[in-house]
Amino acid sequence: MKNIILLGSGNVATHLGIALKNSNYTIVQVFSKSIKNAKLLAKKLDTHFTNDLTKLKPADLIIVSINDDAILSVLSKIKDTAIVHTSGSIGLDVFKQKFTNYGVFYPVQTFNKEIDINISEIPFCIEGNSLEFEKEIIEIAKALSNNVVNMNSHQRKQLHIAAVFACNFSNHMYSIADELLANNNIDFKILLPLIRKINANLENYRPKEVQTGPAKRKDTAIIQEHIATIKENEIKELYHKISENIIKYHE
Amino acid sequence: MKNIILLGSGNVATHLGIALKNSNYTIVQVFSKSIKNAKLLAKKLDTHFTNDLTKLKPADLIIVSINDDAILSVLSKIKDTAIVHTSGSIGLDVFKQKFTNYGVFYPVQTFNKEIDINISEIPFCIEGNSLEFEKEIIEIAKALSNNVVNMNSHQRKQLHIAAVFACNFSNHMYSIADELLANNNIDFKILLPLIRKINANLENYRPKEVQTGPAKRKDTAIIQEHIATIKENEIKELYHKISENIIKYHE
Repeated sequence: MKNIILLGSGNVATHLGIALKNSNYTIVQVFSKSIKNAKLLAKKLDTHFTNDLTKLKPADLIIVSINDDAILSVLSKIKDTAIVHTSGSIGLDVFKQKFTNYGVFYPVQTFNKEIDINISEIPFCIEGNSLEFEKEIIEIAKALSNNVVNMNSHQRKQLHIAAVFACNFSNHMYSIADELLANNNIDFKILLPLIRKINANLENYRPKEVQTGPAKRKDTAIIQEHIATIKENEIKELYHKISENIIKYHE
Repeated sequence: MKNIILLGSGNVATHLGIALKNSNYTIVQVFSKSIKNAKLLAKKLDTHFTNDLTKLKPADLIIVSINDDAILSVLSKIKDTAIVHTSGSIGLDVFKQKFTNYGVFYPVQTFNKEIDINISEIPFCIEGNSLEFEKEIIEIAKALSNNVVNMNSHQRKQLHIAAVFACNFSNHMYSIADELLANNNIDFKILLPLIRKINANLENYRPKEVQTGPAKRKDTAIIQEHIATIKENEIKELYHKISENIIKYHE
């Protein structure tokens, strides 16, 4: 499995393509529906490109890194080849009807084309439709990363929900804090030392062990005072609901 | 203002006492209602100790670092001296009836007696009852930290609410993720590279600018699927409410 076609030219395809090339895999072709983007990435990888799915070259493996909602229509135009997708939220069975060897090759990270990342630290979650094929794609993942995990589609869905809480929702908590502070002419950066400390704790403790704050202390006087002070109704409600959940979780 | 009494022997008092001593202030005495704790901290600071508020020595400044709910009763037993407290949630006016020079000296950090901290990076929020006295306590704060900010009691309350969102609530989002993963035999550590990335973003961007995820993309199909997949009702509701708020916030 040394000759690989990349379907996609976005953030994941770009970082994967470069990492695979650096690990002595050959990217034989880049496909993108935008010929300009296909050409741009192909140039970086010193390879061929196309925007026509009927003109894919022979390859050992196709890696599909396109938007979730475009996957089905793209798959309908490809002939049976060993194939994986890189999506956290699409199941393995998207390939079932048509392909013989298929799998999922999901890197747990947010990618940005412009920002360098150290791919060797990124966890890769791997699932194959057979033990044999799974072994082959695990080998590729291990050439890229020191952090390769077997994970079935059910677990991957749970991981995706957990990542929404741990990354998207925690970031939104920062946004709410930023807005509360901006409304009172205070720079959000005043919280950075505290945020750094909270996150450093995660390297050594489970988050439940290092929870602090009024809800953890069941300090209802402060909780009521905070809720009364917050002006926006939705933020009041979030403060109330999350505090309730913390109190219940630490009973 | 070189001779200081510490009222309290907990995490904040301990770190402040050591930092003040290192900056050539003299801790003339440590008070704690527990004579054992008073003695322990006094030994570290090479000074006197007491558990009797009627036996405080003469000093230029008293720093009160005790539990919020004990402050009023302690203040009732002290004679008029220049005085500050270190609490984020207690107002300046707790001192009003009895003292001539008073203020707040609030370090924005979670302290732990056992863990070393770099006090020079911790933001100190300062408020004094007169410009003159404020200047004097700002000078002390600047001897300890490079990050000293003037902040009135109203702003400090807003900062405290913001810190609850940015630190306590984001940590609870990690706890929820940890539990979802543990229920499916997945180690929370798989999310650490992603969490590190999200937090590194805060050093250079406002949190709103780097928000990602299904709610940010208004991907209602994934949101509905996640809510249907989550088993616990309270967690379903939190997913729903926070997603709604993200969608509204990014309209």
